[in-house]
Amino acid sequence: MVENNLKPYVIGLDLGGTNSVFGIVDSRGDIKATTAIKTQGYNTVEEYVDASITALLPIIDTVGGLDQIKAMGIGAPNGNHYTGTIEFAPNLTWAHNGVVPLADLFSKRLNNIPVALTNDANAAALGEMTYGAARGMKNFIDITLGTGVGSGIVINGQMVYGVDGFAGELGHVTMVRGEEGRKCGCGRTGCLEAYCSATGVARTAREFLEKSEEDSLLRSMKPEEITSLDVSIAASKGDALANRVYEFTGKMLGEACADFAAFCSPEAFVFFGGLTKAGDLLMKPIEKAYNDHVLPIFRGKAKFLVSTLDGSSAAVLGASAVGWEL
Amino acid sequence: MVENNLKPYVIGLDLGGTNSVFGIVDSRGDIKATTAIKTQGYNTVEEYVDASITALLPIIDTVGGLDQIKAMGIGAPNGNHYTGTIEFAPNLTWAHNGVVPLADLFSKRLNNIPVALTNDANAAALGEMTYGAARGMKNFIDITLGTGVGSGIVINGQMVYGVDGFAGELGHVTMVRGEEGRKCGCGRTGCLEAYCSATGVARTAREFLEKSEEDSLLRSMKPEEITSLDVSIAASKGDALANRVYEFTGKMLGEACADFAAFCSPEAFVFFGGLTKAGDLLMKPIEKAYNDHVLPIFRGKAKFLVSTLDGSSAAVLGASAVGWEL
Repeated sequence: MVENNLKPYVIGLDLGGTNSVFGIVDSRGDIKATTAIKTQGYNTVEEYVDASITALLPIIDTVGGLDQIKAMGIGAPNGNHYTGTIEFAPNLTWAHNGVVPLADLFSKRLNNIPVALTNDANAAALGEMTYGAARGMKNFIDITLGTGVGSGIVINGQMVYGVDGFAGELGHVTMVRGEEGRKCGCGRTGCLEAYCSATGVARTAREFLEKSEEDSLLRSMKPEEITSLDVSIAASKGDALANRVYEFTGKMLGEACADFAAFCSPEAFVFFGGLTKAGDLLMKPIEKAYNDHVLPIFRGKAKFLVSTLDGSSAAVLGASAVGWEL
Repeated sequence: MVENNLKPYVIGLDLGGTNSVFGIVDSRGDIKATTAIKTQGYNTVEEYVDASITALLPIIDTVGGLDQIKAMGIGAPNGNHYTGTIEFAPNLTWAHNGVVPLADLFSKRLNNIPVALTNDANAAALGEMTYGAARGMKNFIDITLGTGVGSGIVINGQMVYGVDGFAGELGHVTMVRGEEGRKCGCGRTGCLEAYCSATGVARTAREFLEKSEEDSLLRSMKPEEITSLDVSIAASKGDALANRVYEFTGKMLGEACADFAAFCSPEAFVFFGGLTKAGDLLMKPIEKAYNDHVLPIFRGKAKFLVSTLDGSSAAVLGASAVGWEL
């Protein structure tokens, strides 16, 4: 048997609401083999793990068997790193009303290799630190701009999990206080996520269209069908209203980052997810608002980076990075 | 010579704007000897260190000499832990326009014992972790409510210094955005400190008095002479307006803590400083606003504690705790 710290691969599992994607990854971030199953359609977590193992064993064989696997890392919604459990995940039929010991179940089926899990945003941050834009950094914040706004925070080279395993929910800091704050999916109002997620950007566009008579390429669409991608395309064609939507979004993100700097003074903010495709349209307003608003001692210090991980494999790489930490 | 890790004492230096207080402290937080000099009146840092050493040597002798001293810790304004320097401290004549290697200078004069420094709020947090309300905790936030609002953040049992040594400036997160935010001493507007410091509380009282005709014990005073202590005394006598000032202050602190929880999900928030003398008048609104505003997964989890360190010795104990970390 190969010594554990010499084993060349980890398994990464990106456990999403629809698909569960498995990859076998080496220490440089090369994905050697991959497979996937549907996440839903199982009554119990045991059935889900059964289906996973059935899909996994053949790709494990392609790299030389379980003896070559150091550990497994899982990125999953509502994943708790401390306990290896998924807790009350509203979108998972087999974990929506309880605490499911997913890490333990996988470990038992895989010759007791170490298995760890964390939520998807923390996995993305570990992926960025292990293979991506934050390689070598000990203090940075990874912000995922997708359907929601997620975050993973690294301080002193360690992931911040907090006392209960749920730290790093920067999508839910309050940016607009009081009654004018937008309703957020979390049940509260005024959260960063309600403004700066992909859905938040589309909502801002609809609000801007309603509030003015200004001409815009977006007026040719039904308001309820506008997505953040449409806004980005219009903005890149020089549409003034669409540009203001990105300025508004970037300004709020930059102001939020200024508060985050007061907390942990990171070397960099790394942005990941669909919205970052807007490039400078978004990144320039973020950096400007940050330097306009941050405490003078932090001004001009932090880097503003876009993830260097390939979108399609980033989640599996992030999950595998959780395994390398073991 | 006694082995370094068996040496029973550290020196703590609370370097304030007016006085520099030295204490020799054992591992249980008992201050065995103490002395003080004026902080100001020196042209150079070398002269300041000379005067310090002259005052220190006699009290070092009372505990058996330098051989009994493990290290020295300094809590100082604008103190940078990474470099052991004080940087551009506006209130220190011998450090206001440069970078002063204070830790090195003390070490050289004290037989090369290790010397570390950090800012006063971080020192307070380390003091609380070593001797006070946060003993045994690995994740907590210490918030100092004095003339300003300072903070020290501990995550995974480590002080958060950030990439540059200046992290943990939670007094300067933005609580009121836009033009209606109060001017803060840092040059920006809307900071937590502008509302929830002792001076912020007095200002809130003046604003409340101006905005209404309501009867209040505070009306017998000249508005510009009202202090947070006056507000606290009036509130404890049942003055409704004064009570609302503390409710306002507590609500803002509680909402700020809700954002901090999204960041690092601490076990506790520990409050220190003059304003905490208001007791439940302040602490109850903080805890209520926190639980009303925090993300549901964090609700009811965090403890809200008042420092258990004696006010007069807390700063020296905090500084000494910096030494024990070495």
